[in-house]
Amino acid sequence: VSGLASGIANGQISPEGIVAILGKTEGNGCVNDFTRAFAVSALKAELALHLPDSAVNGIAYVMSGGTEGALSPHLIVLERVDDALATSPALAIGSALTADLPAHLLGTRGQVEMVAIGVKAAMADAGISDPDDVHFVQIKCPLLTAERISLAEQGGLSVATRDTLKSMGLSRGASALGVGVALGEIDIASIDDSDIGRNTACWSSRASTSAGVELLNHEIVVLGMSENWGGALAVDHAVMRDAIDLTGVRGAMDRLGISGGKSSLIALLAKAEPGTSGRLRGARHTMLDDSDISATRHARAFVGGVLAGLVGTSEIFVSGGAEHQGPDGGGPVAIIATRKGAAS
Amino acid sequence: VSGLASGIANGQISPEGIVAILGKTEGNGCVNDFTRAFAVSALKAELALHLPDSAVNGIAYVMSGGTEGALSPHLIVLERVDDALATSPALAIGSALTADLPAHLLGTRGQVEMVAIGVKAAMADAGISDPDDVHFVQIKCPLLTAERISLAEQGGLSVATRDTLKSMGLSRGASALGVGVALGEIDIASIDDSDIGRNTACWSSRASTSAGVELLNHEIVVLGMSENWGGALAVDHAVMRDAIDLTGVRGAMDRLGISGGKSSLIALLAKAEPGTSGRLRGARHTMLDDSDISATRHARAFVGGVLAGLVGTSEIFVSGGAEHQGPDGGGPVAIIATRKGAAS
Amino acid sequence: VSGLASGIANGQISPEGIVAILGKTEGNGCVNDFTRAFAVSALKAELALHLPDSAVNGIAYVMSGGTEGALSPHLIVLERVDDALATSPALAIGSALTADLPAHLLGTRGQVEMVAIGVKAAMADAGISDPDDVHFVQIKCPLLTAERISLAEQGGLSVATRDTLKSMGLSRGASALGVGVALGEIDIASIDDSDIGRNTACWSSRASTSAGVELLNHEIVVLGMSENWGGALAVDHAVMRDAIDLTGVRGAMDRLGISGGKSSLIALLAKAEPGTSGRLRGARHTMLDDSDISATRHARAFVGGVLAGLVGTSEIFVSGGAEHQGPDGGGPVAIIATRKGAAS
Amino acid sequence: VSGLASGIANGQISPEGIVAILGKTEGNGCVNDFTRAFAVSALKAELALHLPDSAVNGIAYVMSGGTEGALSPHLIVLERVDDALATSPALAIGSALTADLPAHLLGTRGQVEMVAIGVKAAMADAGISDPDDVHFVQIKCPLLTAERISLAEQGGLSVATRDTLKSMGLSRGASALGVGVALGEIDIASIDDSDIGRNTACWSSRASTSAGVELLNHEIVVLGMSENWGGALAVDHAVMRDAIDLTGVRGAMDRLGISGGKSSLIALLAKAEPGTSGRLRGARHTMLDDSDISATRHARAFVGGVLAGLVGTSEIFVSGGAEHQGPDGGGPVAIIATRKGAAS
Repeated sequence: VSGLASGIANGQISPEGIVAILGKTEGNGCVNDFTRAFAVSALKAELALHLPDSAVNGIAYVMSGGTEGALSPHLIVLERVDDALATSPALAIGSALTADLPAHLLGTRGQVEMVAIGVKAAMADAGISDPDDVHFVQIKCPLLTAERISLAEQGGLSVATRDTLKSMGLSRGASALGVGVALGEIDIASIDDSDIGRNTACWSSRASTSAGVELLNHEIVVLGMSENWGGALAVDHAVMRDAIDLTGVRGAMDRLGISGGKSSLIALLAKAEPGTSGRLRGARHTMLDDSDISATRHARAFVGGVLAGLVGTSEIFVSGGAEHQGPDGGGPVAIIATRKGAAS
Repeated sequence: VSGLASGIANGQISPEGIVAILGKTEGNGCVNDFTRAFAVSALKAELALHLPDSAVNGIAYVMSGGTEGALSPHLIVLERVDDALATSPALAIGSALTADLPAHLLGTRGQVEMVAIGVKAAMADAGISDPDDVHFVQIKCPLLTAERISLAEQGGLSVATRDTLKSMGLSRGASALGVGVALGEIDIASIDDSDIGRNTACWSSRASTSAGVELLNHEIVVLGMSENWGGALAVDHAVMRDAIDLTGVRGAMDRLGISGGKSSLIALLAKAEPGTSGRLRGARHTMLDDSDISATRHARAFVGGVLAGLVGTSEIFVSGGAEHQGPDGGGPVAIIATRKGAAS
Repeated sequence: VSGLASGIANGQISPEGIVAILGKTEGNGCVNDFTRAFAVSALKAELALHLPDSAVNGIAYVMSGGTEGALSPHLIVLERVDDALATSPALAIGSALTADLPAHLLGTRGQVEMVAIGVKAAMADAGISDPDDVHFVQIKCPLLTAERISLAEQGGLSVATRDTLKSMGLSRGASALGVGVALGEIDIASIDDSDIGRNTACWSSRASTSAGVELLNHEIVVLGMSENWGGALAVDHAVMRDAIDLTGVRGAMDRLGISGGKSSLIALLAKAEPGTSGRLRGARHTMLDDSDISATRHARAFVGGVLAGLVGTSEIFVSGGAEHQGPDGGGPVAIIATRKGAAS
Repeated sequence: VSGLASGIANGQISPEGIVAILGKTEGNGCVNDFTRAFAVSALKAELALHLPDSAVNGIAYVMSGGTEGALSPHLIVLERVDDALATSPALAIGSALTADLPAHLLGTRGQVEMVAIGVKAAMADAGISDPDDVHFVQIKCPLLTAERISLAEQGGLSVATRDTLKSMGLSRGASALGVGVALGEIDIASIDDSDIGRNTACWSSRASTSAGVELLNHEIVVLGMSENWGGALAVDHAVMRDAIDLTGVRGAMDRLGISGGKSSLIALLAKAEPGTSGRLRGARHTMLDDSDISATRHARAFVGGVLAGLVGTSEIFVSGGAEHQGPDGGGPVAIIATRKGAAS
């Protein structure tokens, strides 16, 4: 947290304005990844020096574990400040926290519904009413541990899976469907419990969800463009059709003006996953059959390389496990950049 | 080996002409990777149906373990055939095998010298006399196991390292320096035992070396362009300055005519490594501090993504551990393509 | 296979008599463990020098991957020879192979039934009619890979799980239930598809099953005592109630005469698993929440230590994944020893 | 830390008396194990509710990562209280912290000397003057990261190794030699830089050292018996000659009265390592050639099983990497028990 501390010390960051902190941490990004919770604990300790406890706990901390390959651990601090003179439209940010998710609802329609309501609340917080203005919804969601499963079963409730690693995928998937429902991409009536984690035809183009052992509820951050907001930043999004499809991303970079040098990349957020067919454009991959390294780790490293090779930096937020986030084997990408012509 | 078998069955591949088989196999690419030896054993069993034992054993089998990320396991079969009418210059191939490397010489100048002589022999085999016509030298080299170390020490000899994983890096490094010496890039007189694996300023632009438990000698394959050869294929090379530097590779693709659509990519061979500074363009990476996944695995997955994103296929030969192969954190890349205007 | 080759060369092993070869190999014991298939391929190549193909293929090759901790890779070669003068009763061996298991039946009652029939056939082959005389049933069973799943689904069939690692557990579990059914421990009518891999109250005291990518059918080996057999060896079994319960094993060692020095340990075969409660005698363990190392690998290493500390050698056959093999968190153990007073 | 918190809340633990906290945490126990630092951070936050900062920082926090197999994460809180009536002799505890270790001294005689002085200080703190009364010296020592190495080299200093994982072994080894020197087992004059991590003939019978990224100095805890101390606890020690040698440990259990039921086991602390020969009593093991799982993890899991099988609980403190701690492949074991006849 030394970067955050010095940013606050030199006045670059105003702690009062912080809405959310997104971070890539260097654990395995799977069940026993304690770097996410350690980072949150350290961030809260730092912010507690500047803010009352209620403000510290009101911030959304979305830590995504796993900096495989050359991906770089880093924080994205999202802050909002009152400034009547700022140019509109601009990047708008909103956040919301849901209640704790009971273990037996994880990976079910119940979780989808809980998240959809939360996304609507975060959109309201961002002052965005048209779902088309939303470019990315980042969610941190819970997972099942052996202990949580045991407690639920002692209470006579059954869980969607007893495989703790698999519970991460179900939680990410249900959360992504919740985003799709909130943004009008998916009809809640069409979703069945059995679709979750299985029906790859059903996906959101703007959901990015990440599971972690360090929370029991959902922390939701919405990024979009709004006339109600002003400032130097803009956001756009694209969908990768597979792990090496850069067509859409290049389009978004063109629209933002990055390709033409009229704006600078501030942050890139993307989802990566192995694809259930076991093939990429016909060529067999081995991610799904590897029992030494989790498939999510493989996918982050590889897609991290694909995107870093394009944008020229490894300080990008690539998160693993894209269930219902973009098409099978692909995933959504959001890019935050300086507005064309604006100073960074 | 079903692909090789059907290629032979349908007459596409003539077993008599096979000079070398390069393969990416799906093990961990480290010490206990038995997929390399398993692949060689299966290839030899298949070829023994068509060739006498001496011919089977005269082929260079360069298996490189590790298909992290979406990298695809595949074989590259290099074959030469007499054809007086073929157009020149074209891709030329040569190979050589060295004697077994005594364990106590691994990672020393003795290994550098042994390899340099072997590379010269492979160049002669390819009919290439000018080192500038060499675009890639692929070497499979040995490593130390606990058993080999123990035997050497019982014989009163000391080894360069007792760390088996580290021995892979030293063997790759010494072999790469041997290539540099043979190609006139490096003066053998300037190399000291202590430079090997340490002096990152000393490197070859065309060496690609890979260590494996399945052999005790070096298997060397030289790829270049020669007026003495004809055919539909051409080869060129480039150097990546770091893990996301694509400038040189784009240049080679332009020269070969791939970018302009005048030729097709046949194979891409590249080396990947984490870089000893722990940073990529200033951003910290975690590959060197990760005790769960070997740094070579991280690097292959990431650079695999960087290159696959550029060329649009994951069936590329990315090998890990680029000690003295290209600059620190970067590595050489060779591209085989159809000659401009030639049919594939 | 050098040990097998020299055993045959010096006349200690008669290849014609070999019924089964059990081996611990040094892969990860999970989906992408190619050491099992590599070992089988090398064993068959060696035996083909001495036996016709039909005999080579009639042997049961039960390779169990994973020599975690100090567990030692080794082979157990089970051979039967005609000898009218040998002392009875003695260790009896029988084997059987089932047909290939269709992917959609893996982890279902269909697999249980197929295995039960196979165990009966192996008992008949061993000349054992009373199930109480059976002390161990070792089975090698298939698993699902991404490719097999994809093929089944293309054929309109659904599979019990799309998680390849999980398929190993389901296959082991269904096979163990098949043993229990054959030995009269479990009533087939009481088993439902949903019990498989879930109902830990249902188990066999003598099943040991191991899944591998290298086969599509089941290879079954039965070990027991029989008046129809003579020789220097005896077998007995015990059940570990949890991962550190040695009471039963000490009892079997007493009965065989090992504890009193009247006989020598020849082989020990055991199953290990983490236990679904996440606790061992009240103390939390972390095997089920570890995404870096598979729980089966943890369990093999730990139980390997428990048993090696008792018997004083690490050359023991500890296999992971004890679904329906012994009680939850425990597992069956078989001990082969010289008959009391007989020379080894 | 919930156990510590409730112990303090119910008066069982008096925070003022805490000298040291030893903990097994559930990370990989290697370089990128953040569970150790996370645990220390959580322990300090809890203790800061009860103690002034200087007291919180004066406690030795010895976190050892790695609960492989069924080893259980747990804390051992060592506390001393004034009580004139307590029975002597009894378990005595002392601690000391050294200054930060400069990176270039790690793994050299300089580190040995620094630790030897620290051990003497901890003995003085425990009120023990005779080295024979010392039964265990637990040390937490630093390691090298890519960043620390880079800083040292920028300052023109060379480090003993650039391999971060290997630096852990060198630090553990040098610290153990420091214990041997302080206890009169080893003559400092006989130790050369080149002995460290190599000369396995040179070892301490009571050193237990553990490296971690979370500290730059050494935290030293001495456990012994002293007439100056009273209380219900006693300590004794033994040396395992190899990974399955329980003779010495059984002897210590006899002396303490545990075997006869006259006392109860309170804590067991042991070191585990793979042994450099690659063999255990002649049988090959694969720990040193495994590039997927660190050898220290294998050894902890296996020796954890060996000892848990003996004492009947998996809540034991088994720490990996026993360089110069006991003979090659073996390690020291300390047992804390209730004094014979005393109530626990």
